[in-house]
Amino acid sequence: MELEFLGTGAGVPAKHRNVTSIALKLLDERNAVWLFDCGEGTQMQILRTNIRPRKIEKIFITHLHGDHIFGLPGLISSRSFQGGDDVLEIYGPTGIKQFVLNALKISQTRLAYKLKFIEVKPGVVFRDNQFTVICDLLDHGIDSYGYRVEEHDHDGQLQVDKLAALNIKPGPIFGQLKRGETVTLADGRMIRGKDFVGAAKTGRIVTILGDTRISSASVTLAEYADVLVHESTFNKNEAIMARNYFHSTTHQAAEVAKKAQVKRLILTHISARYLAQDALNLEKEAQEIFTNTKIAKDFDIVEIPFQNEIKE
Amino acid sequence: MELEFLGTGAGVPAKHRNVTSIALKLLDERNAVWLFDCGEGTQMQILRTNIRPRKIEKIFITHLHGDHIFGLPGLISSRSFQGGDDVLEIYGPTGIKQFVLNALKISQTRLAYKLKFIEVKPGVVFRDNQFTVICDLLDHGIDSYGYRVEEHDHDGQLQVDKLAALNIKPGPIFGQLKRGETVTLADGRMIRGKDFVGAAKTGRIVTILGDTRISSASVTLAEYADVLVHESTFNKNEAIMARNYFHSTTHQAAEVAKKAQVKRLILTHISARYLAQDALNLEKEAQEIFTNTKIAKDFDIVEIPFQNEIKE
Repeated sequence: MELEFLGTGAGVPAKHRNVTSIALKLLDERNAVWLFDCGEGTQMQILRTNIRPRKIEKIFITHLHGDHIFGLPGLISSRSFQGGDDVLEIYGPTGIKQFVLNALKISQTRLAYKLKFIEVKPGVVFRDNQFTVICDLLDHGIDSYGYRVEEHDHDGQLQVDKLAALNIKPGPIFGQLKRGETVTLADGRMIRGKDFVGAAKTGRIVTILGDTRISSASVTLAEYADVLVHESTFNKNEAIMARNYFHSTTHQAAEVAKKAQVKRLILTHISARYLAQDALNLEKEAQEIFTNTKIAKDFDIVEIPFQNEIKE
Repeated sequence: MELEFLGTGAGVPAKHRNVTSIALKLLDERNAVWLFDCGEGTQMQILRTNIRPRKIEKIFITHLHGDHIFGLPGLISSRSFQGGDDVLEIYGPTGIKQFVLNALKISQTRLAYKLKFIEVKPGVVFRDNQFTVICDLLDHGIDSYGYRVEEHDHDGQLQVDKLAALNIKPGPIFGQLKRGETVTLADGRMIRGKDFVGAAKTGRIVTILGDTRISSASVTLAEYADVLVHESTFNKNEAIMARNYFHSTTHQAAEVAKKAQVKRLILTHISARYLAQDALNLEKEAQEIFTNTKIAKDFDIVEIPFQNEIKE
């Protein structure tokens, strides 16, 4: 599980920061990629990564401002040319369906796969046997959502390599061992399942927020997250500007991370006004309040390891 | 007057060829830039040029396929942030207005300037004291237009530098000289206008075609053009594919250039299948029929000098 930042700018694209899109790469987990927002040029950014558009399974849109959605029609169209034939699910505020369908209709685009739209409300928007995704409304003048992706706890994995080293071949016995049973082999050896099952692991939590002022919903969505991605459009001295434009400062993003007791904070949605050293200063400002903070650049990759093994 | 190619790819963007957009830079002529098509990422390409979005005065859309229009909402929005306050005129097939307005409405984008839409029909779509723009329908399955930009013939310019060298100051006398009159100065010198007025020049013609099969309308639009920009999606051996997909081969583009007796042919809309040497081969194929052919790369600039001085 890792995040790849495809665009980390605010409002308008800059040479080295495209408008917003973030990939949550779940290749080990489900051989899929989930996108969060899809600003213009996201498909061009993807060309510079190892992401295959046909593996994009879901796109979560935080809000309908252009710098978060204008890349959708192009990415959806190109995915069809690039071998995509699985359903693509698009989650977002009311209006996202009309935006996409109108663009596809006027451009007479026919897709080789199905689109499914889920216009979200606060609460659970997706759940399967691996993940639950919850969203809530933030504070941005226009409906802007934050998404909390909760991985379910992992059972311990059967250590297949260790069994192979003992010349124990796959078969029904693997299921018995995984359930912790003790099995006697044809050659008389007794094998105890619990010696061959790894530790269970606490599922990881990733919280990705749309544009927002500092808000209590952000704290709730981010509680105990392994990674919180928070916008930081302004520096710490511009709280009034941030409030007027429905955005956050470095300090406000860090306050949310601290209150929510997250493990890491990643700042994004950086105004083109902050170049080079000024951008690094934003990181330092946030670190005054929450140490484990990084400012994202385009194409940064953030790995999200398991933090806890669940003790039996 | 020059063309700058902002995107020279076909259908889907490639790493080194973005989807279609072409700038006709009329900085000396009217301190303005006209765009032809606006595929996704055009505003990002513009960041890598010296084009200022606020100087974009008109956008001509050839047809409504996504790779020619999906960059419009973003460019229009950003132009507003980038100091654009003059009217922006958008010419294109019926549907272009609904596409843009729907995207701006759903994204709640408010512009600092006015948009004017001109949904075109074959014929003259724009005329002022400098330029006439004519369009006609090509052959592409969906309505696809070609645009012919005719610069009006230039009167000879008053050679202000030459007058300054003789210590003759600007004033009503300049108007008299420009009209070819002979003027006696206060110091007794007699100045003949025709000695200080440059030669009149034939206006230039630039023809930019949308995606199309080989078509007779293309020839008419391109007649005697200084530059013809023609798509060349396929190589010379793929005429059947070209026909099936409503596109042209290298040879077909060159045939149009030859029949229309243009001065230069620029090939664009190059499929991502043709890399490096293969792309150069496309140029060579076209040159078999029309020598003065170039294949465009992203960011290529084509200067369009005056060809003829009109003799008195």
